[in-house]
Amino acid sequence: MPEERIVTLLTDYGLRDSYVGALKGAMLTIAPHLKIVDVAHTVPQQDVLEAAYILKGYYRDFPKGTIHLAVVDPGVGGPRRPILVETRGHYLIGPDNGIFSYVYQEQSVAQVIHLTATQYFAPELSDTFHGRDIFGPVAAHLASEVEARWFGKPVEDFVRLTLPQLKAGPSLLSGEVVYVDRFGNLVTNIDLPSFYALVKGRRYRITAGGQVLEGISRCYADGQPGQLLALFGCQQTLELSVNRGSAANKLGQGRGLPVAVQAE
Amino acid sequence: MPEERIVTLLTDYGLRDSYVGALKGAMLTIAPHLKIVDVAHTVPQQDVLEAAYILKGYYRDFPKGTIHLAVVDPGVGGPRRPILVETRGHYLIGPDNGIFSYVYQEQSVAQVIHLTATQYFAPELSDTFHGRDIFGPVAAHLASEVEARWFGKPVEDFVRLTLPQLKAGPSLLSGEVVYVDRFGNLVTNIDLPSFYALVKGRRYRITAGGQVLEGISRCYADGQPGQLLALFGCQQTLELSVNRGSAANKLGQGRGLPVAVQAE
Amino acid sequence: MPEERIVTLLTDYGLRDSYVGALKGAMLTIAPHLKIVDVAHTVPQQDVLEAAYILKGYYRDFPKGTIHLAVVDPGVGGPRRPILVETRGHYLIGPDNGIFSYVYQEQSVAQVIHLTATQYFAPELSDTFHGRDIFGPVAAHLASEVEARWFGKPVEDFVRLTLPQLKAGPSLLSGEVVYVDRFGNLVTNIDLPSFYALVKGRRYRITAGGQVLEGISRCYADGQPGQLLALFGCQQTLELSVNRGSAANKLGQGRGLPVAVQAE
Repeated sequence: MPEERIVTLLTDYGLRDSYVGALKGAMLTIAPHLKIVDVAHTVPQQDVLEAAYILKGYYRDFPKGTIHLAVVDPGVGGPRRPILVETRGHYLIGPDNGIFSYVYQEQSVAQVIHLTATQYFAPELSDTFHGRDIFGPVAAHLASEVEARWFGKPVEDFVRLTLPQLKAGPSLLSGEVVYVDRFGNLVTNIDLPSFYALVKGRRYRITAGGQVLEGISRCYADGQPGQLLALFGCQQTLELSVNRGSAANKLGQGRGLPVAVQAE
Repeated sequence: MPEERIVTLLTDYGLRDSYVGALKGAMLTIAPHLKIVDVAHTVPQQDVLEAAYILKGYYRDFPKGTIHLAVVDPGVGGPRRPILVETRGHYLIGPDNGIFSYVYQEQSVAQVIHLTATQYFAPELSDTFHGRDIFGPVAAHLASEVEARWFGKPVEDFVRLTLPQLKAGPSLLSGEVVYVDRFGNLVTNIDLPSFYALVKGRRYRITAGGQVLEGISRCYADGQPGQLLALFGCQQTLELSVNRGSAANKLGQGRGLPVAVQAE
Repeated sequence: MPEERIVTLLTDYGLRDSYVGALKGAMLTIAPHLKIVDVAHTVPQQDVLEAAYILKGYYRDFPKGTIHLAVVDPGVGGPRRPILVETRGHYLIGPDNGIFSYVYQEQSVAQVIHLTATQYFAPELSDTFHGRDIFGPVAAHLASEVEARWFGKPVEDFVRLTLPQLKAGPSLLSGEVVYVDRFGNLVTNIDLPSFYALVKGRRYRITAGGQVLEGISRCYADGQPGQLLALFGCQQTLELSVNRGSAANKLGQGRGLPVAVQAE
């Protein structure tokens, strides 16, 4: 019996249509022993940057060799290329539209393959559903010991989205909200090492959306219900949160909100 | 170790209650090695026709021998029969309320079994939850090598819903929107062979909801953002779409909207 | 190959973020052969009582030895303890905030272990995401034959929420709505044995929200569309339902609504 390889799924296919089913069926027809793991199918439609950030939050938690499908693909059928990305121990498959930008930022990329070997695609290839016809089948074949290089030729000019950059001065970190989660937590791109490097025992203030916070909380329950908190979340980046509430609602803000840490 | 059989799930049980869990638990208690595959659990409540169309979109993508559960069942506990449908390579289990109508339309049906063999049901049979008590257990026993004919006797008078029919004249195809997906694509019952048979190189116009379209696009990205397009979707039926938008919203229309192709 | 153990998931992590993926990845890294079963991830945020009731609806349907993760955890990172509950054949893992209260009510508890053995936690332990860092890893180790007692010491003072109690008099049962499901069914805590013990062939009336019902229906389809019905649902508790409609909408009521059965 072939080894049971894991394939994770992140899509904007929704939870009501046949698309998730068709994708899974296409994969299992090729590789019946696949272990398919649903991550999320309700990425906001065609929001590639949002999908890129969500992917960043889980791919490293899976075992080496896992194949991660990420399909948010407004350009399906157009000139954008289908690709397979190999990093140290991670395989990622999806459209070359920047959806892997956070992976490129934090991983050493071994190779990016432009998927062109049509013998590994569905026999009848649509122009509107590459999940079922290209990405799923390629994932299933990769899981069945087809080597990455057999799917096509390496490319170097893969698409990297411009990601929000943290600006660090001697007494100031200027970041922004890069993600808002289900709980209304406002997740920023201010990472723990940058924060420590700035603060070094100095007093500091965190400002965002007209609010000023002094001090970092350890967990959501540290505050009174309804109180705005700053804490380092599960990816060790600064987030604004409200105990038993929503920071997004409290501040009326979302992605793009500037957040600063000012040391004295 | 018994072979790992696939069972797919399509229900209107939702994503918040215990029902999906109870169904899965009942199946795994009988057949621990089942490979359960979630397709969708948020079919609009009790909308049998909608479920029938969704099912059409994925069941053929799965390997031969797959068992497809489809449970949208407003008549649970009443006179409607629980059935098992066998076609060439596909098994389908659910209520006899028309949910398999599209399957009957496009497959040769080997047999339809009225499920009556109570030894394969839950010991305590409820009148409100046949997913847990009948359909799930029967699927699990079928996956465990109980033969279809052991579950009951064949019936011929199974329920077929009246499906929207495409009308084809020498210069006109009259169809309608049969499904609206998450992206707001208006999917019609105008299939590619009928379209080709009509057009044969002639000029043609597509009309729907007061809009007139000339020409078929290849993919969603073919148009300007916001532009209404006609294209053949992933099941090779004509759909109206808006690049990076929703045709359903743009036209303010949904299921039942007449769509015509007029050749010169 | 190790046996394939089942782990079920009930969380309020939602269906859009990376959290479900990170939890699953953390488990599969430790125990690649786990069979992870999604129950629901959209429990209303931080509503522990709601989660407790949902859990009651499915855990007994799974095979003996199944591990049930239930993580609705507003106190994550605070003083609330992470625990493992063992009953006859069921293992439950989650925060000690009362989420297992219905299990305690209906099962004989063999032991409740306070999870303290950090060698079974994630190496870098966050204060905001114990699903990924404690509960998931402990479930995976438990599935890999680590014995329950190795995770920590037994505790006796685990948290039991005050659950709505049914009051039974000689001619009156006073209960309440304890759950509202996707279909708008108003599920009460009036159980079938208590009902039978009261009625014993006497005439009775059911009153709720200003409505009076006489007689129990057998299934949802027993009434006219739109008609309010009382029936015993899939857990053999009384529920108010509307055939092809929502009792919650019809009555404008939800959790906490008093429901009484008065015998003559």
